[in-house]
Order: sequence, then C-alpha cells, then structure tokens
Amino acid sequence: MGEYALVPWDLRETMGGWPATLRVDVWDGTGDPPADVSDVTFYVAPYGRPAGVAALARMPRLKVVQVLTAGYETVLPALRPGVELCNGRGLHDASTAEHALGLVLAAQRDLPTWVDDQRERRWDAHYTRSLADSRVVVVGYGSIGKALERRLLACEATVVRVASSARPEERVHGVAELPDLLPDADIVVLVLPQSASTAGLFDARLMAALPDGALVVNVGRGGTLDTDALAAETATGRLRAALDVTDPEPLPADHPLWTHPGVLITPHVAGGSAAFYPRARKLVADQLHRFATGQDLRNVVRLP
Amino acid sequence: MGEYALVPWDLRETMGGWPATLRVDVWDGTGDPPADVSDVTFYVAPYGRPAGVAALARMPRLKVVQVLTAGYETVLPALRPGVELCNGRGLHDASTAEHALGLVLAAQRDLPTWVDDQRERRWDAHYTRSLADSRVVVVGYGSIGKALERRLLACEATVVRVASSARPEERVHGVAELPDLLPDADIVVLVLPQSASTAGLFDARLMAALPDGALVVNVGRGGTLDTDALAAETATGRLRAALDVTDPEPLPADHPLWTHPGVLITPHVAGGSAAFYPRARKLVADQLHRFATGQDLRNVVRLP
Repeated sequence: MGEYALVPWDLRETMGGWPATLRVDVWDGTGDPPADVSDVTFYVAPYGRPAGVAALARMPRLKVVQVLTAGYETVLPALRPGVELCNGRGLHDASTAEHALGLVLAAQRDLPTWVDDQRERRWDAHYTRSLADSRVVVVGYGSIGKALERRLLACEATVVRVASSARPEERVHGVAELPDLLPDADIVVLVLPQSASTAGLFDARLMAALPDGALVVNVGRGGTLDTDALAAETATGRLRAALDVTDPEPLPADHPLWTHPGVLITPHVAGGSAAFYPRARKLVADQLHRFATGQDLRNVVRLP
Repeated sequence: MGEYALVPWDLRETMGGWPATLRVDVWDGTGDPPADVSDVTFYVAPYGRPAGVAALARMPRLKVVQVLTAGYETVLPALRPGVELCNGRGLHDASTAEHALGLVLAAQRDLPTWVDDQRERRWDAHYTRSLADSRVVVVGYGSIGKALERRLLACEATVVRVASSARPEERVHGVAELPDLLPDADIVVLVLPQSASTAGLFDARLMAALPDGALVVNVGRGGTLDTDALAAETATGRLRAALDVTDPEPLPADHPLWTHPGVLITPHVAGGSAAFYPRARKLVADQLHRFATGQDLRNVVRLP
C-alpha cells in the first residue's frame, strides 16, 4: 500500500495537481470521514473540528499528523509513539497581530465611543489620543510579537521588546525588568502563552507601575493577567484595557469588566480571521509536497 | 523695529530659548491677543481658533503667516499681497492615516459588533474578514495616502495607488482607470481634498464596479463621494462603509446612513489626535529658526 493523505481542502489548483506518488482525499471534519480512513498515512486535522481529532484513533498506519494551531494539547492523548506531529506555528501570527493593532487603535482613537454615538445618531467630535508617538511595551517577543512590532513601527510608535528572558543582542528585555520599563509606557500588549511561568504574570504590582491612563492589551491567554487587579484599576478609570482573552473565559455576564470605563472586550477572535486560510493552505501544500518527495517536514514538534 | 513673532505655544524648551534676533510672544487664540499685535511680522495662526484668523486684519507689518492645516481657504480673504503664506501640509498625515487604518481594521474585524455585544455582556465569537491579504485601492496618493500605504503594507495588505493623474514611474494609476481597478478591490480608501474635479467623484457607477461586500472608507472630504449612491448600496448590505467625513456634515440625525448594516461613522476626527501636536511644534520651531536666520521657509504656498 502506498502513501495516503487526508487533507481538509482541495489544493489541486494551488499545487498544480496532487503529488503523483500520493493518493489524496479531502475531508473537512464534518460528516463522515472516508471509508478507508484506516489507510491514512498523512493526516491534516481540520481546524476547529473535534471530530477531526477523534478520527485519529482510526488511523493505525498514520506516519504524520499536521494540526493547524500552535497548541496541540488536544491531539496528544490520541497520538501513538512514532507518529510525527507538526503544528500550525506562525499560521495565526498575521491575524493575531492585526487584531492586537485593531484593539490598540480602537482604544487610542475612541472607536467604542463613536460606535455608541452612532447608535444614538449623535455627531459629537472630540480630540483623542494617538498610537503615533506612543511607547508600546510588547510582552512576549515571539513570532506574533514581531509581527505586531512591524505594524506598530509603521504607525510611528516606539516599541519596547520584552520576553521571558533578556536577549540583549536583539534588544529584548526580560520580564524581570518590567517594573523599570512600565512607568514610561503608554501601552502594554501581552502576547504570552499560558504556562506555569506566565500564570498571573501581569499582576497588581506591575499594573501599579503603569502611569495613569495607560492601556493594557491582552491577545495571549487570559490567565497571564490578574483579572481582579485589572478590574480594580479599571473600576476607577486609572487604567484602560482592551482584551481579546479573559480569565475566566468566556467572561461571565455578571463580570464587572464588561462595563468598566475604557474597557474594550472581544470574544477571543484575534486568531480567527480570513488571514488564517491562505497561510494554512500554503503550509499544507508545502507539507504534502515534502511528504511526497521524502523531504523534512516543517513545524515538527519535538515531543518529550 | 525688529522682527516680532506671535506663536501659539511656548517653544523655548524645544528650541533652547527663543532665537536671539527675534522678539517672540505666545497667544493661543483664546482671550485677547497682545496689545502690540500691530508689530507682528511672523504669525502662527492658532489651530482651530477663528479669533486667530480675525487677528490677521490687525497686523499691517506682517511678512509671514503660518497656518497649521493643509487647507488655507479661511485665511485667504484676510491676506494682503506680499505676505508669505505657509501651510500645515504633512502635520495631520500620521493622525489621518492612523484613523483610516483604525476604520479599516474595525470594519474588517467586526469591532462595532463586539462593542454592541459588550454592551449586552454577550460573549459570542465568529470568524471575521482580515486586512492581511486584502487588496486596498487608495484614491488620493499624496502624503496622507503614502502614510496610509506604509501602514497597510505592514499589515500584509496589497495597495493599489490612484491619483487624479497617472504617474506610471511611481506605479500610480489615474482616477480614469478606477472602473478597471475596482472589480478586484476588497477595500477602497478615499483620501481626496474637496475641489471642482473631486466633487462627487466616487459615484454610483464606480460603486457598482466594486464586488459584493467591499468596504468604502472616506477620510478625505465628504463631498468627494455620492452619499445617496452609498446609502443605496449599504441599505441592501451589498457594500460596507467606514466614514469619517460625510455630505452633509455633520450627518443629520435622521439620515439613513446612521443605521445601515456594515456602516461605521466617526465625526470627522481623523486629523484631531495627539499625533498632531508634536509635529506642529516641530514645524513651528523650525520655521522660527529659519525666519530668524533668513533661510527659506518650509511649506510655502504658491498663491496665484
């Protein structure tokens, strides 16, 4: 039996036909998978479809599984030893950085106020803050942080890079330096993954180091920020916030953050935009080509 | 009598003191101007203050007037022959381009919906459009158009440049080519001044050339777009719009555009943000220095 790939989209147009040495079928994770799923050797788990993960258990000949998210914790329990796992690192960078920029601009230029005014059919201009000339501390300087930095620099902002450990050769500060960096910040953007070391990292003490009126943005994970501390700082209007992720998530309807002044909330949608698909299709096409021609795959996850 | 400058801000800190050969006073356009305003030879008209323009009539020795807007139509009637006029070209570029980008991102990433949902304390995610990979036609390729282009490119969008006349050496198309360019556009941003040749330029025929779901953004002047045609296209939801300027302006409370689906309205605030002042102060400091040392001034308007 030859190699058999199961992918979520028909990529023949992108690829100029399927690789000749490979049998390929398309299954998007809805309805039933193909009858002979047990012959699949290369599997791309459809994005956001739990059935796509469940199908893994019925693929005894599997050699490679490609997921389309950076995280892969849902796939791990179904993964047999020896199966190569590739993740979707980088696929959400543009979408997430773009949403972070949108949140920053909305907050600086008072867009929520204009939306509220529009609902009342009210034309009532006032002078606003800007992003240009602002000092933005980006906490989490991986691929999303870098994509965000490119956008912020084009907007004439100053960027201060912060990561878990200092990398002086890249002008990246360590999180331990935050107490010294925050008093000069206009805006802080958290782009941190959830882990033992990031849990509750942005706490009451760090918030207190920010100047009055500063903006706290979170597009990483809700648990990296102390929600109660932020609620206390926004209740008084001392700090502003724009959050795509919260803790708890979804944010309960009776949570005070919904109505605090200067707080903008979006429901964890930073990664989920049209910017994802072209990048995901390109990755899968490339991986299919590499698999068919025996080359090393991209985004291979080193499992312990 | 020597040279006497009247400026809206105390710039001594920026300039390391006033130029030694120049007497300088500060008047921000509120309250009474200095008693000896008739001796003023270099005058910076305060931004957004009609009294600042009226004071021109009492300055018989005036040599130079600096306005802080790109337009100068309000100053012209008060200008005697021989007085040099300098405008504020470029001072609003960053602010206006930034607001245009904010409108585009808000529309593509459904920010008005998230604001409405937040008011209802509702967490209800959906997949959105993106700016990345979008094709944006920028109509009006002057300094604001270029500032916007830099921001759009950083967001991984494709930019198509359009100006009144084609400039092939800069890859700038002429407006006459719009009917051929618009069918491939995801977004059109109008950054046009008001003039006889731009009045109603973006009309029903051009709108009809746009594909379903395209976004029309206007941060130039309201009269460059046919408001009735846009109202017809947005009433059905075929086109979307994000408008900082309208015609008429302010938009009357009973105007249908306020409530059409996919329409976002801000009250002519693109230029009025904190990004303006640092740039205006720098220009005025530079002009004072040039005036005091007999150098050519910047932003001189060639009057007919």
